[in-house]
Amino acid sequence: MTLDEFNVEVLIVGAGPAGLMAATWMAQTGIKTMLVDQKGLRTQCGHADGIESRTLEILDSFRLGESIYRGANLTIDLCLWNQLENGDIQRQTVLNNASPGLSRYHEATYGQGKIEENFLKFLQSSNSVEVRWNTVPVKLDILQSCTDYPVRVVIQTKQSNAECTLATVNAKYVVGCDGARSWVRKRLGLRLEGNHMDENWGVIDVIPATNFPDIRKRCIIKSEAGHLMIIPREERLVRFYVQLSPGAAALFRAEYHPKALVAIVKDILHPYSFEAPYIEWSTIYTVGQRLCPALSKHNRVFLAGDAVHTHSPKAGKGMNVSIQDTYNLGWKLASVIKGKAIPSILHTYQAERGAVARRLIAFDKRMVMGIGEKEPSSDSTEQKEGTLRAILKEENTSESGSRTYYQPSLLVTRTWDDRPTGKRHMLKPMLPHSKTNLAINIVLGARLPNIEVLCQSDSRPYHIQRLLRSTGEWYLLILGGDILQKSQMVRLESLGLQLGRTDSLIYRINQQNDSVCRISTFLVHCAPRNKVELMELPQVFIPFDKKLGYDYWKVFADNEPCSEECGSAHEFYGVSAEGCMVLVRPDQHVAFIGSLEDLPEVESFLGNFMIASIEGTECQE
Amino acid sequence: MTLDEFNVEVLIVGAGPAGLMAATWMAQTGIKTMLVDQKGLRTQCGHADGIESRTLEILDSFRLGESIYRGANLTIDLCLWNQLENGDIQRQTVLNNASPGLSRYHEATYGQGKIEENFLKFLQSSNSVEVRWNTVPVKLDILQSCTDYPVRVVIQTKQSNAECTLATVNAKYVVGCDGARSWVRKRLGLRLEGNHMDENWGVIDVIPATNFPDIRKRCIIKSEAGHLMIIPREERLVRFYVQLSPGAAALFRAEYHPKALVAIVKDILHPYSFEAPYIEWSTIYTVGQRLCPALSKHNRVFLAGDAVHTHSPKAGKGMNVSIQDTYNLGWKLASVIKGKAIPSILHTYQAERGAVARRLIAFDKRMVMGIGEKEPSSDSTEQKEGTLRAILKEENTSESGSRTYYQPSLLVTRTWDDRPTGKRHMLKPMLPHSKTNLAINIVLGARLPNIEVLCQSDSRPYHIQRLLRSTGEWYLLILGGDILQKSQMVRLESLGLQLGRTDSLIYRINQQNDSVCRISTFLVHCAPRNKVELMELPQVFIPFDKKLGYDYWKVFADNEPCSEECGSAHEFYGVSAEGCMVLVRPDQHVAFIGSLEDLPEVESFLGNFMIASIEGTECQE
Repeated sequence: MTLDEFNVEVLIVGAGPAGLMAATWMAQTGIKTMLVDQKGLRTQCGHADGIESRTLEILDSFRLGESIYRGANLTIDLCLWNQLENGDIQRQTVLNNASPGLSRYHEATYGQGKIEENFLKFLQSSNSVEVRWNTVPVKLDILQSCTDYPVRVVIQTKQSNAECTLATVNAKYVVGCDGARSWVRKRLGLRLEGNHMDENWGVIDVIPATNFPDIRKRCIIKSEAGHLMIIPREERLVRFYVQLSPGAAALFRAEYHPKALVAIVKDILHPYSFEAPYIEWSTIYTVGQRLCPALSKHNRVFLAGDAVHTHSPKAGKGMNVSIQDTYNLGWKLASVIKGKAIPSILHTYQAERGAVARRLIAFDKRMVMGIGEKEPSSDSTEQKEGTLRAILKEENTSESGSRTYYQPSLLVTRTWDDRPTGKRHMLKPMLPHSKTNLAINIVLGARLPNIEVLCQSDSRPYHIQRLLRSTGEWYLLILGGDILQKSQMVRLESLGLQLGRTDSLIYRINQQNDSVCRISTFLVHCAPRNKVELMELPQVFIPFDKKLGYDYWKVFADNEPCSEECGSAHEFYGVSAEGCMVLVRPDQHVAFIGSLEDLPEVESFLGNFMIASIEGTECQE
Repeated sequence: MTLDEFNVEVLIVGAGPAGLMAATWMAQTGIKTMLVDQKGLRTQCGHADGIESRTLEILDSFRLGESIYRGANLTIDLCLWNQLENGDIQRQTVLNNASPGLSRYHEATYGQGKIEENFLKFLQSSNSVEVRWNTVPVKLDILQSCTDYPVRVVIQTKQSNAECTLATVNAKYVVGCDGARSWVRKRLGLRLEGNHMDENWGVIDVIPATNFPDIRKRCIIKSEAGHLMIIPREERLVRFYVQLSPGAAALFRAEYHPKALVAIVKDILHPYSFEAPYIEWSTIYTVGQRLCPALSKHNRVFLAGDAVHTHSPKAGKGMNVSIQDTYNLGWKLASVIKGKAIPSILHTYQAERGAVARRLIAFDKRMVMGIGEKEPSSDSTEQKEGTLRAILKEENTSESGSRTYYQPSLLVTRTWDDRPTGKRHMLKPMLPHSKTNLAINIVLGARLPNIEVLCQSDSRPYHIQRLLRSTGEWYLLILGGDILQKSQMVRLESLGLQLGRTDSLIYRINQQNDSVCRISTFLVHCAPRNKVELMELPQVFIPFDKKLGYDYWKVFADNEPCSEECGSAHEFYGVSAEGCMVLVRPDQHVAFIGSLEDLPEVESFLGNFMIASIEGTECQE
């Protein structure tokens, strides 16, 4: 037995979607990381399969989105079916399975294994993240003494010959993404709170042979024989969720034979035919909604994904919320590890993701109730269906991640209306304010919605979200308004001068040669594009590099649409011709909204947590 | 010295765009092929850079389009600049650099090397194509005796130690894509005909540092100091075409120093600043339009690309026409080699691509005249500019490849109006006829234009062109009209029955287990989609496989657009609610248009050249 000992900045436990997202951030920002998983390889089939549009936006911000979207199944329609008195089932209604306009991506389904494969390919091209399979932590201690690597973890690797080796990993931070039975969570003395409900569901992934007409649409079927959900998947796969009687559940558990589930599906789908010539995967689960109130210990060990929230798979949220958990955490860790931000920003992980977890659990309870309800008597059908429809709509809006918003904190300003009263005043006395009235369609704390704009230099359409790449950078989006108005150009020029001042905080931060915590500036104006001369704009918007020449991709216009898709960004964001300034975090969430004169406010906000290196400062003075 | 001898189905000489496209077809259809090139590796920089929308459609039909399109620069605007009396240049006008609606892809620029890289990656994943670098043919003979491999080629490979090895390759077919100085062409005793014009142009790829405002747009600048074309490229590259005086040309030829070109660009761009901190590539060329009248010898050795047509690079057509040459040839070769079609179809290569080459040369002459003309006196400015504009418009429509159409032949039916009169009657007495009036916006012989339709089973939008993958398959597109009309459904059912008959030619052809020459059927109807029940349609449109279940992706609808982009296919194609049938070749060109009753006509057309039986063909002619 050997006992190696080494240091890493971050140790991630669990290579499911949450752990892989965390590792992806570390790879992107070049932070030395070890990712361990008890399995011998990635998920091969089954498990989660729903990908929400917000998750696709996130994947695309690492340029992982396109290939996943191409392979995925887009689930356009949602059909509700009920049972007639003669026992046959009948389609009641067809609904949209997405809220139009919420995202440039449609809700989709794709096997968890395929998503993991894409993440792993990304990690392979990095040399900062090491993945160790067949490896588990067996000991974890957080040292109280002041040390650079205060989390000591002993890991055990099972070799192919069944021999085990141990090693000690000294980590700055540990992220536990090791699922509902999380070893890390238990080791921290934390537990999931909540109950299992007395309801069993079987899950089966098959290539079906059926004349059921809506087999390539998402369906919810309520019948006496049990309730059924149909989720079409990539290629020819279809997933079925089948409600099981206690007897059927016990039988399935005893024999674990998927044929039993096929028989129930066949029964429910009567009068349509149903066979399953190919069965890829099956399992059974009991509905339960449970939550771990604490998402971290001493801001050194963090928990994410199923380790802190478990719920039914009905809404296809699991993989999404898990990825979004560590998407929230990763850039914060990178910023602190690189000495660019103070460690206190890590507290916001608990505040921001804890609230999401609580909303998720509450929503899942409503969802399970709505689906699981027995078919109501005919006179109240409409009302009950209305309830289910409202839940399904909620699923596609507020709960899809696209409308997730984070409360004011070190990393989100508060709105001007939040007058300091009582307790709130005591808690957040120092926060700068946002003038949300300047951009009435942008939600402070939520992700910046996408719109296409036209590049001033080459007239090409660009998605604004595509500019906001996940690199650790912050983005200062200047909606410049009608810059051909002389007064407006004066304001823009004044802002340009301030941004270019070598003694400004932003300038000093940007002098550091690293994308993490850099503040990148984009200008979007709404003046007639062909009348604006790019080279006459303030220099800060056309940065010059001796080797690379000018950067021509910092200035955009939202007029003269070249296609139906190109709208007016100012109108879309609810910004007037006077413009405004929006500071966007590295995770695309809006931290601040102000006027073109509010750069001091931006700097005071950033100054609360960002660290401009001392050397850099000295050099400047 | 060793002298290996081996057989291949196809030997391709030259691994530029034409040769790589030919090899891509061979890889896609699994035909044993050798591709040789005198170079040691692919193009690294410079050379061609224009990619037209039709070329992108072709690349996408092999699923090579997306990554190329993502990396490419889209050239949206075209700016015309003239010189003022004071010597300064001034923007005259801004035009569209594409015809809106012609294709789902925009005209683009991307280095030839990057395109080649994508092709080579595709070939790597094939095991039927071998690429040999540093290899040239040194002897080529076409045997007159009846043998399976009648083209004997001796190839010579230069090893790293400068030693040469020889081998004899016996090929069924040879494709010479070895450029303007083609060894294969010379060996066949053929030559390029035409003249060089007395005009020299320099070409330079740089990352510029300039305050010229349209540097990221395509520009044509006419000035006393010479004419200049600016072509923005991928990333920060820009290409400049500079007209050179005989003196400047001689100087550049003598010293081959790109700085001389930079100085002329700087002079022309006055009063704007111009420097070139990074110069990637430069060359000089003399404008000439030359053509080889014969594109093949004995239908055993074929020529393509620059080997048969050379012209100016002004319109960015070279790489496109070259790729389109072998895109036309490849599937025909595969069909004959696999014994699925008679060798006579190979004659159509000369007829179809020879006509394109002639049109290309004629167009290039007009283009060069339009750009090269001295700036006219002010009173005739408008007229002359009108001429240049007309040429530029032509560049983006009829000459872009999207409107290329092929004349009636073994592989394209003639229209019903083509009454057999005189000479034509003698030449093509056997051709079946098309009823072009049934689809007034589809051009017989041209590529099928793209439109989005909705899949009946999953409501998802699909581009029709994306269904027409380049696999060697033919596609029978049935525009079914309003199939909820009883009479129309009766017609469709009757067609479905005929298609399913086991004694039909199409059925027999499709029994062969190969995609080459298979006929795949798609149905697009214009009835209200939600009222059509997929499972009630004729079985031939929902093929069933014991292992894979039903194929749910054969039936589409063109109503109920889910986005602005989804139009009505019937309206777009000019088809009435009575529908029609369109037979599309493996290269997406339309071979036949008829009514739903015209399946016998389709079969008589296919029967002229397709071989249903499995026995191979004897030695040709």
